[in-house]
Amino acid sequence: MDRRSFLRTSALGGTAAAASTLAAPLYAQGNRTLTLVTSVPDGFAIFDDAAQMAADYITAMTDGQLTINKMPAGSLVGAFEVFDAVSSGQADMYHSADYYFLNQHPGFAFFTSVPFGMTGQEFANWYYNRGGHEQHNELAGLFNLKSFTCGNTAMQPGGWFNKEINSADDLQGLRFRMPGQGGQVLGRLGASVQNIPGGEIYQALASGQIDGAEWIGPFADERMGFQEATSIYYTSGFHEPGSALTLSFNLDVYESFTSAQKQVVDAACAATNSKSLSMTLQENGAALERLRAGGIQTRSFPDDVWNAFGAAAAEVREENMGDPIYAQIAESYFAAMKESVGWFDIADGEYMRQRNRVNAG
Amino acid sequence: MDRRSFLRTSALGGTAAAASTLAAPLYAQGNRTLTLVTSVPDGFAIFDDAAQMAADYITAMTDGQLTINKMPAGSLVGAFEVFDAVSSGQADMYHSADYYFLNQHPGFAFFTSVPFGMTGQEFANWYYNRGGHEQHNELAGLFNLKSFTCGNTAMQPGGWFNKEINSADDLQGLRFRMPGQGGQVLGRLGASVQNIPGGEIYQALASGQIDGAEWIGPFADERMGFQEATSIYYTSGFHEPGSALTLSFNLDVYESFTSAQKQVVDAACAATNSKSLSMTLQENGAALERLRAGGIQTRSFPDDVWNAFGAAAAEVREENMGDPIYAQIAESYFAAMKESVGWFDIADGEYMRQRNRVNAG
Repeated sequence: MDRRSFLRTSALGGTAAAASTLAAPLYAQGNRTLTLVTSVPDGFAIFDDAAQMAADYITAMTDGQLTINKMPAGSLVGAFEVFDAVSSGQADMYHSADYYFLNQHPGFAFFTSVPFGMTGQEFANWYYNRGGHEQHNELAGLFNLKSFTCGNTAMQPGGWFNKEINSADDLQGLRFRMPGQGGQVLGRLGASVQNIPGGEIYQALASGQIDGAEWIGPFADERMGFQEATSIYYTSGFHEPGSALTLSFNLDVYESFTSAQKQVVDAACAATNSKSLSMTLQENGAALERLRAGGIQTRSFPDDVWNAFGAAAAEVREENMGDPIYAQIAESYFAAMKESVGWFDIADGEYMRQRNRVNAG
Repeated sequence: MDRRSFLRTSALGGTAAAASTLAAPLYAQGNRTLTLVTSVPDGFAIFDDAAQMAADYITAMTDGQLTINKMPAGSLVGAFEVFDAVSSGQADMYHSADYYFLNQHPGFAFFTSVPFGMTGQEFANWYYNRGGHEQHNELAGLFNLKSFTCGNTAMQPGGWFNKEINSADDLQGLRFRMPGQGGQVLGRLGASVQNIPGGEIYQALASGQIDGAEWIGPFADERMGFQEATSIYYTSGFHEPGSALTLSFNLDVYESFTSAQKQVVDAACAATNSKSLSMTLQENGAALERLRAGGIQTRSFPDDVWNAFGAAAAEVREENMGDPIYAQIAESYFAAMKESVGWFDIADGEYMRQRNRVNAG
């Protein structure tokens, strides 16, 4: 995914006219309405599902003491203005993917996903147990924000191709749609990286303007109709191995909550995280079955292509390490990853390989 | 794990004298105290961590309207009397592993873990998205209970051995400690299955009374000191691929909650589930590093041993399929698993294999 696709597909790209006249929040003893701005249209797969779930939890658990009024991209502010709107107090809270805010600070990349980084589960391991949440709020606090991970798209696939990738040489000149750090990696490997908004990918694929594209995953990709424009799907990718979503409050608003309300926010986000990740994984499985039944062929990149991805990703990562906050977060992130990957691979990983091979389930 | 180990290690195996004089719960407008009985001592790794977290969430989120009074195994009722105590209304809620209650109904196995079943993440996929929670409550409702999955031990390893297992023949006559359906599988393969309480495993291993044992995972196993009695650790196992824990309410108590309180319970359990599973996975990774640094050798069972496990597990599973409720749950469970495993293996699974191989993290 990327920023631009939302800018084009949301109803309004800029600040709505009503924004400057937004009433100040009520701090009366009764119910209080909080404005939640998001970066997607209502009903957008995974993203809005998570935003709506967290909003509903908070409203319901506080019996309406905190009533969340969710406003989709463009209805109060534009999709990528939510960060500044909440930081400044124009809105109370946002739900988005924090890597949209790399212009504010490159360290926000880690709170969505980075190439060769953690899966959705591994991210939770770090976030809840090795200081990830604290790192998140050390960074968010610089912008007068209090943040909680709140939803996960799971691993984003390598994407849709019109030909097989049998060696790194096949990436030379490949016209491929991939934004962000992942796109930078592909560019270093000779691809002609295209930043095409989500709403225009299908046409670009169908017309032959591009040779391939990545989006989110089978559940979301299927809705875009890419299976009608190409037939080869690389199911595993290096670029966003588990994209986390964030619910972030204006810090003054958050600090005005009672301790019970703060606990409600914490639990609403952690519960949403669990249910969002599991929803994505289950629905991706179901969508994969439909795509395969429709004739889509799934592929894996060969080892030497993964080697090339890895070398280029390491170079891209190094570019930001001069920033001390980025470097501090990176150190915490990769230390936790290194600690947990060894066990998972020889325990759950080995189990799943053997179970699926034996097929005794 | 198994039942007996707790019976021996908890302070009191039976019903405490005070049980019959338990005061009726207060339904006044003010705060209400709910008695939570558990199957473990206070501080027991993973199990009590999850019970305490859920209790704290509920108390804090309701600002004490529902104040949870957690009572460890033996303080009100014995470790395995919690089910009947809550079903009958003697206590308000229990936190335990539902496969301790197979005598009440064999279908409870699915709400903890079954051989060749789902990992912790896969279980959440089913539970929240393909009717697992509804199946749980259809069964629990027969016993006047309302249940929520609430914590997960992650995959339980194959266990500690005093020799390598190079073929299924090596299981013949092996004196191995494994309870439950997993033990039945080993028994069919010629092992001499031992049901030894947790508190006695170390001594049995150290004295040579048994050739090996499984317990929970590196984080919990390390505390038991098994690394001092044996040196070979099979990290992946077939028997409990992701053991879920349950928070269960007396149904009348649950129905007396306000809708806000019901939402608090739902979110507290889902949040605990996310944090418990991530804690276990991260801490298992850290414990593995320590065990290896101390000289423990990790091993994987060869393919033909996994084949033998799979064939015997399928036989054991068939034994219960005559029960229509068991069969209904099994159908729902394995259909969801079949739907989700394909995607995970070629997406997250392939990614982790390549990332760990490339070592670019």
